[in-house]
Amino acid sequence: MVRQSSPQVVRNLAKECNDLIGKHVLLKGWVERTRTHGKVAFFDFRDRSGIIQVTAHENLAPKIAELSLQDVVRVEGEVRSRDERYINPEIETGKIEVHLEKLTIISKAAEMPFDMGGKELSIELPTLLDLRSLTLRHPKILPIFKLQEAIVQGFREILKNEGFTEIFVPTIVSSATEGGAEVFEIKYYDRKAYLAQSPQLYKQIMTSVFERVFTVAHAYRAEPSVTTRHLSEYISLDAEFGFIDGWTDLMDMAEKVTISIIENIRSRVQNRELNPAKKFNLPEIKKKILRVKLQEAQDILFKRTKVDHRDQPDLEPSEEQEMCQWALEETGAPFVFITHYPKKKRPFYTMPDPRDPEYTLSFDLIGISEEWVTGGQRINDYNMLLEHIEEWKNTPENFELYLQAFKYGMPPEGGFAMGLERITKDLLGLSNVREASLFPRDMERIDQRFSVQSHISSKK
Amino acid sequence: MVRQSSPQVVRNLAKECNDLIGKHVLLKGWVERTRTHGKVAFFDFRDRSGIIQVTAHENLAPKIAELSLQDVVRVEGEVRSRDERYINPEIETGKIEVHLEKLTIISKAAEMPFDMGGKELSIELPTLLDLRSLTLRHPKILPIFKLQEAIVQGFREILKNEGFTEIFVPTIVSSATEGGAEVFEIKYYDRKAYLAQSPQLYKQIMTSVFERVFTVAHAYRAEPSVTTRHLSEYISLDAEFGFIDGWTDLMDMAEKVTISIIENIRSRVQNRELNPAKKFNLPEIKKKILRVKLQEAQDILFKRTKVDHRDQPDLEPSEEQEMCQWALEETGAPFVFITHYPKKKRPFYTMPDPRDPEYTLSFDLIGISEEWVTGGQRINDYNMLLEHIEEWKNTPENFELYLQAFKYGMPPEGGFAMGLERITKDLLGLSNVREASLFPRDMERIDQRFSVQSHISSKK
Repeated sequence: MVRQSSPQVVRNLAKECNDLIGKHVLLKGWVERTRTHGKVAFFDFRDRSGIIQVTAHENLAPKIAELSLQDVVRVEGEVRSRDERYINPEIETGKIEVHLEKLTIISKAAEMPFDMGGKELSIELPTLLDLRSLTLRHPKILPIFKLQEAIVQGFREILKNEGFTEIFVPTIVSSATEGGAEVFEIKYYDRKAYLAQSPQLYKQIMTSVFERVFTVAHAYRAEPSVTTRHLSEYISLDAEFGFIDGWTDLMDMAEKVTISIIENIRSRVQNRELNPAKKFNLPEIKKKILRVKLQEAQDILFKRTKVDHRDQPDLEPSEEQEMCQWALEETGAPFVFITHYPKKKRPFYTMPDPRDPEYTLSFDLIGISEEWVTGGQRINDYNMLLEHIEEWKNTPENFELYLQAFKYGMPPEGGFAMGLERITKDLLGLSNVREASLFPRDMERIDQRFSVQSHISSKK
Repeated sequence: MVRQSSPQVVRNLAKECNDLIGKHVLLKGWVERTRTHGKVAFFDFRDRSGIIQVTAHENLAPKIAELSLQDVVRVEGEVRSRDERYINPEIETGKIEVHLEKLTIISKAAEMPFDMGGKELSIELPTLLDLRSLTLRHPKILPIFKLQEAIVQGFREILKNEGFTEIFVPTIVSSATEGGAEVFEIKYYDRKAYLAQSPQLYKQIMTSVFERVFTVAHAYRAEPSVTTRHLSEYISLDAEFGFIDGWTDLMDMAEKVTISIIENIRSRVQNRELNPAKKFNLPEIKKKILRVKLQEAQDILFKRTKVDHRDQPDLEPSEEQEMCQWALEETGAPFVFITHYPKKKRPFYTMPDPRDPEYTLSFDLIGISEEWVTGGQRINDYNMLLEHIEEWKNTPENFELYLQAFKYGMPPEGGFAMGLERITKDLLGLSNVREASLFPRDMERIDQRFSVQSHISSKK
């Protein structure tokens, strides 16, 4: 932590006060919550390091009553130990408080449009998003995005260790790369272009350059319905690598990355770098994650639920959850690979299973309650790729740079992608993926809700 | 480095061979370049760790002649020391070679459409980009993007150390946030939306949540001309922080981040983690970077060039370069802050200079040959922001979430942004910013060049 320089005084952070008992400190931050007990008044003060209680006695106590929540204040005072009875184990500064000596308002806040001072934040999601700039500051919301930062850091760290290079690829593309109609069209000078559905084709190209690559990419889906699982713009954690000895190498890596992300978070929680204001779902994956073919999974589900979906090309969300439950019972952790999806359910570049070409060397890693990872081996043979592009009713002209990479020497390769918001949601047990996006986009909202008239009935 | 598991054999990386003299190794990678000397043939082999020479004697030598450049091969052989005379100091494995015992082609490459085997890559930029999937593999191109990775890592590392939180903000926005006509329009369901010109408004909102934030963002500019300095999509390294004691805190941080990025690269070059295939421009910034008001800079330029632009609101590119030269002479490093740009040249949220409100508390850090950083203090007073939005002929309704953050307690704050491709270009002395973007977008190209008819005359 750096301290800002100032001619007279140095600013202290709330968390630093634990080491400054008996000392005078200068704090700058926000008023989170106020309360009065007779002649003594308190407020919870927040800065980037956390929360600390400020206590005002005598003539300073009335000043607390005048504070608005979220006022930006400058606090001078003495750090004191709290009486045993008043220790608060829920916050990191729970054994101390700041005895107020001087209070200055730096920036005055308007009156809150909702109860921001409560420990819980009991407002409905649409309102919570309408007031996003405020609700993000709430102690039940802010830690969601500290966790999200840690997920991305964990992803990058393990892949750097595994010899991957981080790349930055474009989001404006000239055609709908992966098929499907759910793309956003851009007016690109005097032409049409599109927002990339994923960094897929570029990360594949880059395996012929760096062999092992990853990217934290923006991905876009013009999802024409409102569900709890879809965003129009999301963050995709993508990895791709060449020289696989067999396609199970891909699942091995996906498993290693998943476990590493979870263990990275666990150690940050233990080191108190991450503050679990919400209870984390941090499963311990101690046994190898089971790998079950889609058709085997459907047999398992039929036995468990008596509902026969054995003719379906994919699992429904409730079936994915049931498979997590099955995996939990089998291995102690709610994670399972579902493999060998039908060719027609996967994009054109997916490698067919040589033993049954109507199925593919593809997998989803289902975790806790939904898809954590999707991946598979890609076709690395130039001619087979050309055939698939035509079979998928597309034209090679739309894939010129992509095909170039394969025409001139591409090793056997594959990779996977993880949806950042979905993983965040699952680790915190949130009910809607929008809660795990700072500023979620969907067909009803870009920051502000579109006019009420435009609302269509939402489906789960 | 992890090794891939296989029942019989373990793959070795080229760089590992330095420690395996006398041992049999298994390599997998690409054929970079071949040559024959009578009965002995050689090829340069590339994998993700680097390059190594493979030498074929006797009956294996003719096999080398059959190789195509960029073939993906499996090499078995013995690592041997080179004779003193043949040591190549330009590569990390220059003291050794692999004595070929078995060669297998994993994936055959078509015949190269240009001379890929040369040490230099002498093709014009448009062709270089037409063949991007191949040219990226060339030893003069590939290291550009290893450097780029290192710049981003250096940026993240210093800011994490300074207490910043990494955030992920959207690129789809509902209005042209920063003014100006150069935005791309998106068909967003049945509405219009736009691609964000920068993460500016979101990072500002987030200072009221995390106090100090950074983001590696995609930014979009519908630049209607083709220059050597502009991309339609680029990566913006953005930082923003609150509780500044004065606006010079912002320049202090920008300076610290800039120096940290450069020193991080220097130490990676020294540790041989980065291979400077191109010569790096790595200036040593030993003295404090000078801070010169725009009007003072114009006086300096007038004295040096005798051209009078003292009535202009900004510097021209050639003037920025002249100021870098001036700074080099004054301080030993070609970096200088230009400050106090006129209000009308800066976006609505820029804090006016209280001593002369027609100018602003804004700065550009000019480095080597162009703008490295742009930044400034922002208006944190809600009412002043409202006035500015109206003065800039916009409506507060377009900024609802943004204004919310300021209405409810925002500390004095500011920040800065760095264009990743421009810094990469400057550190390598590249002549065109497109060379520093993996897959550059401009009005003439998305991967493939648009039809020749659409070309307009380009200006520098």
